[in-house]
Amino acid sequence: MSAKQKNAIKPSREEDYAEWYQEVIKEADLAEHSSIRGCMVIKPWGYGIWENMQKILNEKIKKTGHQNAYFPLFVPLSLFEKEAEHVEGFAKECAVVTHTRLEKNKEGKLVPVDKLETPLIVRPTSEMIIGQTFAKWIESYRDLPLLINQWANIVRWEMRPRLFLRTTEFLWQEGHTVHATSEEADNKAKEMLSMYTDFSENILAMPSVSGIKTESDKFPGAVATYTFEAMMQDKKALQGGTSHFLGQNFSKSCDIKFMSEKGQEEFGWMTSWGVTSRLIGAVIMTHSDDDGLVLPPKIAPAHVVLLPVIHNEEMKSKVLSFCQKLADEMQKQTFGENKIEVIIDSRDIRGGEKKWQWIKKGIPLRIEIGPRDMEKNNFPIARRDKAHNEYSFLSKEDLIKEVQNILEDIQKNIFYKAKQFMQDNIFDISTKDELYSFFTPKNTQKAEIHGGFALCHLADTPENEKILKEDLSVSFRCLPFDLGQETGKCLFTGTECAQKVLVAKSY
Amino acid sequence: MSAKQKNAIKPSREEDYAEWYQEVIKEADLAEHSSIRGCMVIKPWGYGIWENMQKILNEKIKKTGHQNAYFPLFVPLSLFEKEAEHVEGFAKECAVVTHTRLEKNKEGKLVPVDKLETPLIVRPTSEMIIGQTFAKWIESYRDLPLLINQWANIVRWEMRPRLFLRTTEFLWQEGHTVHATSEEADNKAKEMLSMYTDFSENILAMPSVSGIKTESDKFPGAVATYTFEAMMQDKKALQGGTSHFLGQNFSKSCDIKFMSEKGQEEFGWMTSWGVTSRLIGAVIMTHSDDDGLVLPPKIAPAHVVLLPVIHNEEMKSKVLSFCQKLADEMQKQTFGENKIEVIIDSRDIRGGEKKWQWIKKGIPLRIEIGPRDMEKNNFPIARRDKAHNEYSFLSKEDLIKEVQNILEDIQKNIFYKAKQFMQDNIFDISTKDELYSFFTPKNTQKAEIHGGFALCHLADTPENEKILKEDLSVSFRCLPFDLGQETGKCLFTGTECAQKVLVAKSY
Repeated sequence: MSAKQKNAIKPSREEDYAEWYQEVIKEADLAEHSSIRGCMVIKPWGYGIWENMQKILNEKIKKTGHQNAYFPLFVPLSLFEKEAEHVEGFAKECAVVTHTRLEKNKEGKLVPVDKLETPLIVRPTSEMIIGQTFAKWIESYRDLPLLINQWANIVRWEMRPRLFLRTTEFLWQEGHTVHATSEEADNKAKEMLSMYTDFSENILAMPSVSGIKTESDKFPGAVATYTFEAMMQDKKALQGGTSHFLGQNFSKSCDIKFMSEKGQEEFGWMTSWGVTSRLIGAVIMTHSDDDGLVLPPKIAPAHVVLLPVIHNEEMKSKVLSFCQKLADEMQKQTFGENKIEVIIDSRDIRGGEKKWQWIKKGIPLRIEIGPRDMEKNNFPIARRDKAHNEYSFLSKEDLIKEVQNILEDIQKNIFYKAKQFMQDNIFDISTKDELYSFFTPKNTQKAEIHGGFALCHLADTPENEKILKEDLSVSFRCLPFDLGQETGKCLFTGTECAQKVLVAKSY
Repeated sequence: MSAKQKNAIKPSREEDYAEWYQEVIKEADLAEHSSIRGCMVIKPWGYGIWENMQKILNEKIKKTGHQNAYFPLFVPLSLFEKEAEHVEGFAKECAVVTHTRLEKNKEGKLVPVDKLETPLIVRPTSEMIIGQTFAKWIESYRDLPLLINQWANIVRWEMRPRLFLRTTEFLWQEGHTVHATSEEADNKAKEMLSMYTDFSENILAMPSVSGIKTESDKFPGAVATYTFEAMMQDKKALQGGTSHFLGQNFSKSCDIKFMSEKGQEEFGWMTSWGVTSRLIGAVIMTHSDDDGLVLPPKIAPAHVVLLPVIHNEEMKSKVLSFCQKLADEMQKQTFGENKIEVIIDSRDIRGGEKKWQWIKKGIPLRIEIGPRDMEKNNFPIARRDKAHNEYSFLSKEDLIKEVQNILEDIQKNIFYKAKQFMQDNIFDISTKDELYSFFTPKNTQKAEIHGGFALCHLADTPENEKILKEDLSVSFRCLPFDLGQETGKCLFTGTECAQKVLVAKSY
């Protein structure tokens, strides 16, 4: 539709999805690569999205009984290696602080001089450092459940960085809880996953399939990992976030014991769960189009841009003061948990250029304000979820009255669109041939476009995982909670499977 | 007064101020040392204080036109050393990442394996990494001023850590701006200092003396550093925050150029400014007493605790439901920028123990709710800024009506108390003997207690600084903006000084 528009993103989604993604970020001014390999700079418009996500999620985390705290950035190697599976899972990605002082050497070159006794790992996750602290905090069952959350930066060395999706440093929240029983901990892990999917659907307008990870894809050290997998517009899966039931693995490594009601010393049952700034990437890929970024109004850094149309100096102050009054009226109102934010863009640049900048930034509503519109009290309004040249008209009074409803309508509209797309691209697959055909690109021009999400019976074994990876470059995403519950025989081995597994290409 | 109370903090402020500080933190459950040298764990009650400070300050920063963004945790050494003074100032405190992967060696021990080409410094401040990015963002005067703020964690290796005051890792905000003229940048640096002192007075209830740092105490690489210095109860100075006019030093190291309106290429004029989680330590030391923490209501994680008095099971539900209704009514109201937070503490522990836990946590208001109080509709209320056994009485209706006023009154009361204390302990000193006597402890039992802040004529030279340090363990704090503006002769050298300097022992 708009692919031929000269102002559109180049390349289009069809032409090169990966490159389109980079361009959407660039044109919306969300983030950029820094000079440090894999580390990004999150620019104000991108960080504004993160702040809104953080604010809303933080409220949800507090309402479910958790308290925020802050733990050290560093994990001593001697502590980190206490949980064998855990350290093995992260060893390749660790950034290691080995020294603590700089001094000039004989050639006058600054070099690190004081070597640490035990190297410090820049936290790739905080189970061990938090676990060690929890061991001091917990004595009896009366101290349980212990429900803590942390907002922090995380470092996992990344060889193939992509803005938001895979970066060496990223931002996240990580919840860590301790419970008196296995059942209570497992329920907490599931509860937090459903908090995430609720957030994803209602705030990010992003539908997903939730389920349990297969054995090979679990968090290192976890008993079970729950996940929600969203579908991007190239039909690949993106893991939106995970929640882990850790059993007693970490309480044993960290010596987290409590005196039970019966007076017996027991190890605590733990969970951990997190979502990251990667969700910004997921939002971009779920909603944006060939014109650029599309944002769910609930996390947009601003909701409305007023574009004054000024032909001469005489009218300027009149138009601008009208804009200011309109903005004030709108900004008295809230949308979701936030105040409605209105920008008056009075920069002296070409109208078309200005309009396209805002389209590409994904602002939900654009309203043009010119002397004639003021005279007629009828203003052209463009919604970002419609075509760029599709306008409706409202009076000032109706604009003020309707702005919340319009934003709500955009929020719902992009959610249903994404949901429809996902539903249209989940298929039940019942033979091996069908599976192979499903994941074989049909058209060389669209090399990345394949079938979508496949639901099929496949035994959860490393062998099957390997075949999928080598033959089709796809992987097990999860054993869904609400899809493919029927038993059946593994397409590869004939083994009996209790339910279907979700298979897809993934980010 | 309350020093003899058996529940009070031991030791008292008079007995051992430094140890008293640690105990206040411990008893209020604010923070604790971690196993990593100098790194602290900020516990929920302490982090709640930080979250409130952050929220209020963030609003102020945005209202003055700055936008939040996020920059990498790491600074490549090759970049860091481009500003010679800057790197020299931080070299001793740097934590250095030299490797990026862990692997088992022949003995099965995990060791770092991949050596980085250029070591990465964990940011001790972000001028260089942000400057390098700004160079890409700025082309013309139209891009100026560029006004950016970042909330982040910072690492400066600390040999003598003290909770909140000096920690290897701490939390802060750092503002970084670029302007077209020297004057505009210098004004911005001053504007932000006065934003800080406003925040300090009106939110933290903490008075201070603001001024310009002497030459030796400037930020490494700055042209001028502005500071606000608060007085703790042991009469020592604590630097609350600083704002730097950087001139063109960093724009030259980072190559931040812009095309001026006249079409000439010029280097940008910069500022940076920050306050840290250290302010929590300042608040503790400014307001707390021998009974424990005292919090300004505007940053208290919760404002009111309801203490149900339950003698039998029969009355329990009646008392608790009354508490819930009262809490609901109070929580509908706001105080400052926040909702009033009410805690109902129905834990089954001894009343006296419970009461003292809340005194030590510094909650502004304690209200006891028992069946008899309910009958009489008259409830005992204790304010944390009064003695622990001083109660006033209010009906339920008046409580709901007055809670905002009472909190406001506490906020004002502790501010005026701190202001009076500071004013009482700033002295004009006019001879060298007087200065030496001022800083010599009068009483060996109170070894830490000395004169306070001294205002005197002393030339801003390294020699004078050295004498002060060696003879009296004191230092130049600042050349105040509003104090000691009269000219006079240096007490040590006789040189003519344009104004008096503030001298004090410091944290």
